[in-house]
Amino acid sequence: MTGAGTNSTQPKMEGGPAIVLVRPQLAVNIGMCARAMANFGLSDLRLVAPREGWPRTGAYRKGAYAAAAGAVHLLESARVFASVEEAIADLNFVYAATARERGQGKTILLPRAAMDDTAARMAAGEKHGVLYGPERTGLDNDDVALADAILTFPVNAAYASLNLAQAVLLTAYEYFSAARGQVAPFAAPERSPPAQREMVLSFFEFLEGHLDERGFFRPASKRPVMQRNLRNMFHRMGLTQQDVRTWWGVVVRLVEGEREQAGKIKDE
Amino acid sequence: MTGAGTNSTQPKMEGGPAIVLVRPQLAVNIGMCARAMANFGLSDLRLVAPREGWPRTGAYRKGAYAAAAGAVHLLESARVFASVEEAIADLNFVYAATARERGQGKTILLPRAAMDDTAARMAAGEKHGVLYGPERTGLDNDDVALADAILTFPVNAAYASLNLAQAVLLTAYEYFSAARGQVAPFAAPERSPPAQREMVLSFFEFLEGHLDERGFFRPASKRPVMQRNLRNMFHRMGLTQQDVRTWWGVVVRLVEGEREQAGKIKDE
Repeated sequence: MTGAGTNSTQPKMEGGPAIVLVRPQLAVNIGMCARAMANFGLSDLRLVAPREGWPRTGAYRKGAYAAAAGAVHLLESARVFASVEEAIADLNFVYAATARERGQGKTILLPRAAMDDTAARMAAGEKHGVLYGPERTGLDNDDVALADAILTFPVNAAYASLNLAQAVLLTAYEYFSAARGQVAPFAAPERSPPAQREMVLSFFEFLEGHLDERGFFRPASKRPVMQRNLRNMFHRMGLTQQDVRTWWGVVVRLVEGEREQAGKIKDE
Repeated sequence: MTGAGTNSTQPKMEGGPAIVLVRPQLAVNIGMCARAMANFGLSDLRLVAPREGWPRTGAYRKGAYAAAAGAVHLLESARVFASVEEAIADLNFVYAATARERGQGKTILLPRAAMDDTAARMAAGEKHGVLYGPERTGLDNDDVALADAILTFPVNAAYASLNLAQAVLLTAYEYFSAARGQVAPFAAPERSPPAQREMVLSFFEFLEGHLDERGFFRPASKRPVMQRNLRNMFHRMGLTQQDVRTWWGVVVRLVEGEREQAGKIKDE
């Protein structure tokens, strides 16, 4: 499930838990949720009784589509349902996202544990979904009662109000991280290979030889610890072969002074 | 560092890495970043050369303050700097948040690993910060060069555009999760205590006795597996004492038929 993958080997991103927006109020928030889903490869958007309907034309459409910032395919493929029951009929496991404990004795899960479990069970063929309530009020207790478990977010209790798209974003982020591991969306950079130890030790001897000549390692009793500290700073750099060549050049220049160039006239 | 805490024992949330917005373009985005920070207890907001300045009055102020949705204290305490160098002068470790590999050979970290490390090192007294670039263009290469490491987000490569506040949100969420563990922002619900085994077994015997009388366990050779499956379904419920009393009542009612009530006239 986790860890593998660079751009070139990643399958087309689709799937993930259904994001079920229950009675959403504002088109712009539906659009922002679509964008957050697309960022993390979720593709199943369901709307239950959107307050202003779900027209495909007019200013309402425009607001949602602008906020989706290119994730228009998700708005086009969103399914609209009259009730939560219909929206979740095909799902095997349903979370209710809420910021408050609802006194229903349901299991309470944080997004990391929840999406780790969901990613594993969806990989085994289950269908999962998450209910999110209207912006102002959150889910009704009757909506929460339809869910298997509560999903809540680990926020600063003094300032706990996440907006709708942020809650969807965190869910999608944790699903994606669980399903595919936390890996950068770009291939690892091309770098010079790490320097072999022989090359590094040869540079150390070169540098320390010059420092010895100039009386750097004093008093002599401190020489071992001074040498070790100096070498450890270089080790911490994770030197590449190119890095060692660069350092070699730096020391040569410091020791030899200004480079003599063919055809160059000094103090020109 | 992790795991502990209910509302009543949580210290006032402040601290966390400095969020450094480099040449931000829109006031509304500054406000949304402040809100995301407040959700996860971050308090150190720094602005480098905001495109429209950082006035405390007028429409610009209004847009930022509305988007902050109550996290106004962060806008009030935000510090403005002329250069990135000045903004990060007091920090011990600096990340550059970017969506692209920059060919600078820097360490590339994903938010979970980065913030795990930052939380541990900040607890030991270091000061860390994250640079975020302008909305349209992201950080310049010269800005990235000032950082110790690159912070990037594990997104769907086909749709990698996170907005500024979402990038800040994910960073803040991972810092908070690392520093305090993923715990719900409310105290665990008051529930009836879990039933002791004696109570559960007594109910099983009661139920199975009635089922036996009615010939449920047939053929007799299947009895052990039927009984085990039935009991396991109850075990999966994690029964409380109240739950067992409820089930006992359910079975009594199913077995005995309609309850005789004092004063009640049947078929009224």
